[in-house]
Amino acid sequence: MNTIGQLLRITSFGESHGPFVGCVIDGYPAGLTVDVNSMQHQVNRRRTGQQSFASGRNEPDVIKIVSGIFEGKTTGAPICILLDNQDARPSDYDALKDVYRPGHADFTYEAKYGIRDHRGGGRSSIRITAPLVAAGELALQILKKEIPIKVKAYVSQIGQVSLTSAYQTLDLENIDTNDVRCPDGPTAAQMQNEIQAAHTAGDTLGGCITCVIQALPPGIGSPVFEKLQAALAHAMLSINTVKGFEYGSGFLSAGMKGSEHNDAYRMSKNGIQTKTNHDGGIQGGISNGMDIYFKVAFKPISSISLPQTTINHSGVETVLNIEGRHDACAVPRAVPIVEAYTNIVLADLYLQHKYSKI
Amino acid sequence: MNTIGQLLRITSFGESHGPFVGCVIDGYPAGLTVDVNSMQHQVNRRRTGQQSFASGRNEPDVIKIVSGIFEGKTTGAPICILLDNQDARPSDYDALKDVYRPGHADFTYEAKYGIRDHRGGGRSSIRITAPLVAAGELALQILKKEIPIKVKAYVSQIGQVSLTSAYQTLDLENIDTNDVRCPDGPTAAQMQNEIQAAHTAGDTLGGCITCVIQALPPGIGSPVFEKLQAALAHAMLSINTVKGFEYGSGFLSAGMKGSEHNDAYRMSKNGIQTKTNHDGGIQGGISNGMDIYFKVAFKPISSISLPQTTINHSGVETVLNIEGRHDACAVPRAVPIVEAYTNIVLADLYLQHKYSKI
Amino acid sequence: MNTIGQLLRITSFGESHGPFVGCVIDGYPAGLTVDVNSMQHQVNRRRTGQQSFASGRNEPDVIKIVSGIFEGKTTGAPICILLDNQDARPSDYDALKDVYRPGHADFTYEAKYGIRDHRGGGRSSIRITAPLVAAGELALQILKKEIPIKVKAYVSQIGQVSLTSAYQTLDLENIDTNDVRCPDGPTAAQMQNEIQAAHTAGDTLGGCITCVIQALPPGIGSPVFEKLQAALAHAMLSINTVKGFEYGSGFLSAGMKGSEHNDAYRMSKNGIQTKTNHDGGIQGGISNGMDIYFKVAFKPISSISLPQTTINHSGVETVLNIEGRHDACAVPRAVPIVEAYTNIVLADLYLQHKYSKI
Amino acid sequence: MNTIGQLLRITSFGESHGPFVGCVIDGYPAGLTVDVNSMQHQVNRRRTGQQSFASGRNEPDVIKIVSGIFEGKTTGAPICILLDNQDARPSDYDALKDVYRPGHADFTYEAKYGIRDHRGGGRSSIRITAPLVAAGELALQILKKEIPIKVKAYVSQIGQVSLTSAYQTLDLENIDTNDVRCPDGPTAAQMQNEIQAAHTAGDTLGGCITCVIQALPPGIGSPVFEKLQAALAHAMLSINTVKGFEYGSGFLSAGMKGSEHNDAYRMSKNGIQTKTNHDGGIQGGISNGMDIYFKVAFKPISSISLPQTTINHSGVETVLNIEGRHDACAVPRAVPIVEAYTNIVLADLYLQHKYSKI
Repeated sequence: MNTIGQLLRITSFGESHGPFVGCVIDGYPAGLTVDVNSMQHQVNRRRTGQQSFASGRNEPDVIKIVSGIFEGKTTGAPICILLDNQDARPSDYDALKDVYRPGHADFTYEAKYGIRDHRGGGRSSIRITAPLVAAGELALQILKKEIPIKVKAYVSQIGQVSLTSAYQTLDLENIDTNDVRCPDGPTAAQMQNEIQAAHTAGDTLGGCITCVIQALPPGIGSPVFEKLQAALAHAMLSINTVKGFEYGSGFLSAGMKGSEHNDAYRMSKNGIQTKTNHDGGIQGGISNGMDIYFKVAFKPISSISLPQTTINHSGVETVLNIEGRHDACAVPRAVPIVEAYTNIVLADLYLQHKYSKI
Repeated sequence: MNTIGQLLRITSFGESHGPFVGCVIDGYPAGLTVDVNSMQHQVNRRRTGQQSFASGRNEPDVIKIVSGIFEGKTTGAPICILLDNQDARPSDYDALKDVYRPGHADFTYEAKYGIRDHRGGGRSSIRITAPLVAAGELALQILKKEIPIKVKAYVSQIGQVSLTSAYQTLDLENIDTNDVRCPDGPTAAQMQNEIQAAHTAGDTLGGCITCVIQALPPGIGSPVFEKLQAALAHAMLSINTVKGFEYGSGFLSAGMKGSEHNDAYRMSKNGIQTKTNHDGGIQGGISNGMDIYFKVAFKPISSISLPQTTINHSGVETVLNIEGRHDACAVPRAVPIVEAYTNIVLADLYLQHKYSKI
Repeated sequence: MNTIGQLLRITSFGESHGPFVGCVIDGYPAGLTVDVNSMQHQVNRRRTGQQSFASGRNEPDVIKIVSGIFEGKTTGAPICILLDNQDARPSDYDALKDVYRPGHADFTYEAKYGIRDHRGGGRSSIRITAPLVAAGELALQILKKEIPIKVKAYVSQIGQVSLTSAYQTLDLENIDTNDVRCPDGPTAAQMQNEIQAAHTAGDTLGGCITCVIQALPPGIGSPVFEKLQAALAHAMLSINTVKGFEYGSGFLSAGMKGSEHNDAYRMSKNGIQTKTNHDGGIQGGISNGMDIYFKVAFKPISSISLPQTTINHSGVETVLNIEGRHDACAVPRAVPIVEAYTNIVLADLYLQHKYSKI
Repeated sequence: MNTIGQLLRITSFGESHGPFVGCVIDGYPAGLTVDVNSMQHQVNRRRTGQQSFASGRNEPDVIKIVSGIFEGKTTGAPICILLDNQDARPSDYDALKDVYRPGHADFTYEAKYGIRDHRGGGRSSIRITAPLVAAGELALQILKKEIPIKVKAYVSQIGQVSLTSAYQTLDLENIDTNDVRCPDGPTAAQMQNEIQAAHTAGDTLGGCITCVIQALPPGIGSPVFEKLQAALAHAMLSINTVKGFEYGSGFLSAGMKGSEHNDAYRMSKNGIQTKTNHDGGIQGGISNGMDIYFKVAFKPISSISLPQTTINHSGVETVLNIEGRHDACAVPRAVPIVEAYTNIVLADLYLQHKYSKI
């Protein structure tokens, strides 16, 4: 299963060191003028930010749209997006081909498939998200055609440094003003120090990303197995290194009383709203028109510079030393991935909603 | 979308106050002798536990298997399970038909569909999980035929009372020895007091459920959009009132260093294992043979006895008083639902795994 | 796989001699006032017509709608339809439980599943189409809400008697004026004689059904694997005993020249039309607004009264004598099934078409 | 919907004049050594045969496997296949961009999507089957790993020339010994004359392809909506210009009596077989181990050299003259397409069958 979505179906393919990574987007409506620059911009955002990914690899990441667009407009045919793997250096990975790296998927892929493309993580590489980030931006363009939606993700925790302010107090236009993609300047500086210290120590850090969806109309999502929060959780837990998801008051709601937590409805000049928003804009699996917000936890990436004891695939204990430049924290670069996957979920559920009444 | 699963596909139907709630299970392998008593036992567990659900409704909940089983064995045909709604009292709900109850799905269903079956929550009633709990037990029987799997969920938090001990220190056979389904006696007693106090106050409580999966072999789950953790998160967030999901070290992993978090591989007398298990038995979306554990957060149920101000569907402010017996905490009764949905996910992914190699 | 459709998904369940046969319809739009009488009427049509089905069984076939409809309107929730099996007489079939009846699915079900519900054909019984006929009428109601569509099927061949007139020369309102459901009176009389003779001889007859779809707008269907003709062929070949499908000029087109076959476009007072209609209203998998017509071939039903030599499941040769009243021709009763499956396909593709542009 | 299959899912993308045509194969089992030469051989067969396709275009059609294969073996990851469009000459089609060519999908694509890539037929071009032919060969390799299956298609009719001999009397190894892919030499010669005459006249011819599947074990296919014959019919009607499908005795069975048609079971030295095979190896939607055979009707291709009157998209009548070399008959080149689509269906149903029992 390498496909996400019901009406807007996106199928991922490619490995870290094959000729291309790519995806096919099926079910995209015809007649929409595509903004390819925005797609490329998001792909660029994924590539940049605080330090590069583990490999120190340098890819221009120029998207090629192979199909489904004619004279700048979508035709209703499937849209295939490709990105070259130009800087693939498969031989760099020869030393790792028999070792089960701690925290990585080396052992589990072998257990499942009996075979593993060890070069740069193969299919488990975060590189496969590059075309999906382009697809996410394309998905957003469906929504933007019809509603003034905003989807903004930012880094709210790196290691021990947390941004505790509510998203409403932050200026979400500031997210890309610093390398850690944290909209609060002083916290961003602390996060950068934290990452620098980890880097110096040869270690890595995890963190959290908060995502806010604004101006989604009521009615998106559905009651049972296509609940909006379930689709979001599924998408977020599909991102490598994600360990947790909560929306609205999340885990804190477990300690609240019903009388505290219930969001009372009221009339406002913008129509029906709730006084509080502990439910994070979703009730019964369906959006209620309030802001949707959720938080995603990322573990530290597993490729550290410090020596680690593990075993190889013959079961022999071995000490692993990963050489070369390493990446101390991947969370800032996951921001456009979180946004892209959110956009994919929202566009799919939005299209589903279109035929829910007659 | 009222279906979960790819190979083992379970489609839910029915409303709180229709003649039946039910489900159809398609893709169930032929030739398996079904233990109907276990299925009924799990349905009974869902019905009992600390206090009854909001309605004070009394349903015998006897499952009827309508199809797909012949002389005690599955035939490969779809299995339909029905439960009567015998104690449906639709007129009890007339007072609520125009009111948007805080925390409920009344407004969102209307926003989506333009129509709402208000009787007992209609499709949003937790009652629709009763046949799914039976389906979950049936799913487990596929796994038990081939592997010595154990799936155990228990209550790890009610309101402000948390069970902080690691699951390894608990006797998970004790879960059903008390009404709150907490395997630690003293904590269970505190939880019961907490619930009693909320009940007296006319208020409600949320909580958390922890679930542990043991003896799942390595190789279950898949790399990209059918990651084991994504399928579990999707299933858990499909349960009413769930607000968060984390597995392994979860949100805590965001604050850990790579050198702390990485689970080193080692040889043990039981084969390849990891020394620690921060990854909760899953790497790269695929099980590694270690225990899988995850935690699910539930908000307090929304039907409180205290008066609440809200609006009706004409936008007029109104004070809501829900009369009659109320349910202070639904978390204990969600334990068999968490187990059932987990079993459904595992059985589906297990079947998918069967054809992953040739 | 017991489900048909992508957006409108209909899942069939039940066996000939279980307590119910039924189906669940998911993806049906909310807010439509349902005409249950029309649904019952179609189910009645399936039950009546020339002779009864093989069993001589007498079922009232009253449909029960279990879910998804509230105060006469669809709610967007899945619609479950049940029909009682009241006249099930499983012991009638004990003599057949070890025999592989020629032309039936006895051997193949055992080969596939290792187990077989032999009572009345179990899952292979045509009885399972009864709820699907109701579902087909419900599907048609989506289309009728928006377009003046007509879907009419009739018997165009029974054994050696064929109705050779083009459908345009027939009065399709006459279809139900005779038991064989042939709109041409003299041909119908010949067909009835043919069936009577077969019945007297203890033998059975096949035949053909022609189906005409009028007033479907251009644009329904899609280019590659969801071609309108492919979806129709799939649905038709899903009906028991169907052996062939052709649309437009069908097999005859293989012998035509391009210059004869090509349907030239022209302007008419009703907009763009084609001068001829060899393509049967479909080009590139998509409707062009002209009439769609297709023909379906049915083999004679396999349960004959004449003695037949076959083997039992121990491989021992045995002479099979099926006692009791038998049904000489099932084709007339397949007319509402052909219509229902056509309606299901059209409604699904119509809903898909709704979101193909933006 | 550009995907075929449930477990083995193949998604097509690309247009006639984009940079690539391709497909993604998901669900392919890991660990199989791929024979790329066979894949290329089938793609070459599609390209050659009696005359070239309409465009006179010359493409080397070298397949590139982009993903899912490592050191010659499948890894369980999705397999993407690309073919360059090197000889695309989009400007050749400028004259056609506003005209609705008779028999083509020009009008219907515009009606559906409001936009059309007119260059070489865009998405409706038969060129998009090239990567699918490679995928079909890859699908066959799954089957060949486990069973001695043979899938052979041949031309059984061109225009007025039919090969009436039963397939059992033909040497199916002779199919590729002549350009029309008819295994009977004298008939092949007649067919070639027929095509030559049509070519000289500026006209085109249709025809039929017969396909025979041998050594498929009993048990493949399933009872209701995934009947083997329904899946085959769906696949065949997904090929451009196909107008009809029949299997076994097909349309002839409509005129047969049950006592003639029923295939009695018997014991043979090869196990359970039927004495006759009117059912074409399928009963109740499931293979019975006998040969499966079916016939597919193709209309003449629509691009003729003769002048034709039609309209343009402003509704103005216009005379269409398609210049340049034209292709008088595409049926011979459809032989590998029929085989490929058959292989795709069989491999998918074979994998489905693997988990039907436990």
